[in-house]
Amino acid sequence: MDALRSKQVAAGSFPLQNGSISGDTTGKVITCKAAVAYGPGQPLVIEDVLVDPPKKMEVRIKIRFTSICHTDVSAWQGTNEAQRAYPRILGHEASGLVESVGEGVKDIKAGDHVIPIFNGECGECVHCKSHKTNLCQTFRVNPFKSVMVSDGKCRFSTYKQGKPIFHFLNTSTFSEYTVVDSACVVKIHPTAPLDKIALLSCCISTGVGAVWNTADVQSGSTVAVFGLGAVGLAVVEGARSRGASRIIGVDINRDKLVKGQKMGVTDFVNPKGLENGMSVHEKVREMTGGGVDYSFECAGNLNVLREAFLSTHDGWGLTVLLGIHATPKLLPLHPMELFDGRRIVGSAFGDFKGKSQLPSFANDCVRGVVNLEEFITHELPFEKINEAFQLLIEGKTLRCLLHF
Amino acid sequence: MDALRSKQVAAGSFPLQNGSISGDTTGKVITCKAAVAYGPGQPLVIEDVLVDPPKKMEVRIKIRFTSICHTDVSAWQGTNEAQRAYPRILGHEASGLVESVGEGVKDIKAGDHVIPIFNGECGECVHCKSHKTNLCQTFRVNPFKSVMVSDGKCRFSTYKQGKPIFHFLNTSTFSEYTVVDSACVVKIHPTAPLDKIALLSCCISTGVGAVWNTADVQSGSTVAVFGLGAVGLAVVEGARSRGASRIIGVDINRDKLVKGQKMGVTDFVNPKGLENGMSVHEKVREMTGGGVDYSFECAGNLNVLREAFLSTHDGWGLTVLLGIHATPKLLPLHPMELFDGRRIVGSAFGDFKGKSQLPSFANDCVRGVVNLEEFITHELPFEKINEAFQLLIEGKTLRCLLHF
Repeated sequence: MDALRSKQVAAGSFPLQNGSISGDTTGKVITCKAAVAYGPGQPLVIEDVLVDPPKKMEVRIKIRFTSICHTDVSAWQGTNEAQRAYPRILGHEASGLVESVGEGVKDIKAGDHVIPIFNGECGECVHCKSHKTNLCQTFRVNPFKSVMVSDGKCRFSTYKQGKPIFHFLNTSTFSEYTVVDSACVVKIHPTAPLDKIALLSCCISTGVGAVWNTADVQSGSTVAVFGLGAVGLAVVEGARSRGASRIIGVDINRDKLVKGQKMGVTDFVNPKGLENGMSVHEKVREMTGGGVDYSFECAGNLNVLREAFLSTHDGWGLTVLLGIHATPKLLPLHPMELFDGRRIVGSAFGDFKGKSQLPSFANDCVRGVVNLEEFITHELPFEKINEAFQLLIEGKTLRCLLHF
Repeated sequence: MDALRSKQVAAGSFPLQNGSISGDTTGKVITCKAAVAYGPGQPLVIEDVLVDPPKKMEVRIKIRFTSICHTDVSAWQGTNEAQRAYPRILGHEASGLVESVGEGVKDIKAGDHVIPIFNGECGECVHCKSHKTNLCQTFRVNPFKSVMVSDGKCRFSTYKQGKPIFHFLNTSTFSEYTVVDSACVVKIHPTAPLDKIALLSCCISTGVGAVWNTADVQSGSTVAVFGLGAVGLAVVEGARSRGASRIIGVDINRDKLVKGQKMGVTDFVNPKGLENGMSVHEKVREMTGGGVDYSFECAGNLNVLREAFLSTHDGWGLTVLLGIHATPKLLPLHPMELFDGRRIVGSAFGDFKGKSQLPSFANDCVRGVVNLEEFITHELPFEKINEAFQLLIEGKTLRCLLHF
């Protein structure tokens, strides 16, 4: 935390770390490098692409850092529900500087430090005006969307043939420049370190927000986290910051134990190491005198989901779903099981309203309320993005930060 | 409401209506009439049974009124999950007078006006001490239980052979006298009309409580109720009393429309009468500009459950499950559907803590905050209980009150 803090204070004196915009490209098509997906599972191709200027209520961002999330992996592999549109620029966890803004954008200007968010906030729709949801009617997370909202077209095209390149999750950050609706851009204080703050685009907000906002975990509560990847560990960090009395990490990879303990995991359960055919939920109930107050499913696996649900205490247990599940399998729960007082809810982007709540959350992270230190385990130049994908697929990295 | 009120004021002058205890039977075995179930679907047999005195922390009640709920029907038919134990005395919706109490019972005495509750409250366990649940660890609703908690034995036996007769849902009200744990007895003000107040044992508390406690429906909200039986209409009554702006009743029986409208249903949807193959949830969304704020599933049908879930507004819709579902079919919901912000929860006994909250709720009913007038559609002498079962099975009655 202290390290992060000192970096924050010193940020102003490291212009190269946070970068700057040089030359006036406003209103012009920019030629830059991007990693383009041409088909499911095919290695991304680093090539020159054309990036149009932002249209009305859009923002063009010079990406400084991007990282890779499992949703990028499954979209790249074609195994999730995301529409298969090619060629496409994936990526949704990043930070950068605003290069220029389109007509009508008032809250953001060139040079601002920003993070793009896949779950936008227009501020005008009935959802944005309700305190009950963070799912903007127009700019909410939507895996089926691959073009800009305003005109149904792409802002990217191939350098050689000028063919459109599709967008991904409102963001498309695997490119030196990207165009994003202003509803999907969050302004961050310029002293915040752009490298670590990139993680607020997805995993940190998703995990910590699920604890703070969706579950509203109280001090002294007991928590079980199923799946100790980056999102799961962000849940651990959220639970630790809320003063949970016990944080049980569940993962089949014993290597996660070391990292988990460093971050606040108090107990570790390896489903493969249980004696006498005991199930995970039986073990967790035994450890906690009936079950945890909260469980978080971060594995995207239906069997794990059921164990997470049954691991909570009857009467008041709450299971929060964060993992993405492929269609069309049903919830492995019996209706009558809901009468035991256990509840289950989904959480998208940690129930944060991006534009209105993330700047303050970013400040919390900079102040060390949430510790971002442990999440970036690797750093590579952007050109090595295929290598970074492999690291994530093989479980060797939490987050590999790519530098432009 | 005025009618109910005037009856309340006059109750003291109708001792026969509310009944009284004559002769001293304390400590003695009582011989009385009961309706005994001998096997699934076999007509109940009205016969003399022996009722033991209450043991420690138990109460013997002289039942004055009982009615029949669908849970009694399915237990009688052997189609629900209730343990098949015969002979057995069913019944769980009733009111009566305390005949005598066992050792240690402090809060209840002979002559008290009471209702038995299937979902008890010991007041001592971790669940009873938590504000988050009404599911007492010892006396919660339990269809698998058929004996008394203290000694695992029955307080009923057959007159001729002295064979034990099993209990049902902590209550067994199809008997002139029953023995109940004191945790399952709620004392009611003696001026409350015992006939109508019997409905607080189950359907009224379940339906109104689901609105008031589980969903906490706010004034101006929109509500859809799936299944307009007694519980569904109690939900309607709960929503009306909370000032819901729109109450959409959904039922395949068009006759329910008349009753429903009388009680506050503002719109009626008949799933069988929808044009162009429209589904119920499409219709409800069309009627409400995106879906209702709350839906209540009172039909115990999985297809209906799915329609109820999808009928709510994305972002904040809440579906409350009240209907009983036979094992082992799973929830017909996809995990990803939970990420649209729709939630689903179960509600047992309307989330009321019986002993501590029902006396006040009963006062609300007597004061007319909740209108009980419309629920009792038939009245019969107890001996005609099989006839009353048929009326309910054929959908001809909401509640048929049986008089002892």
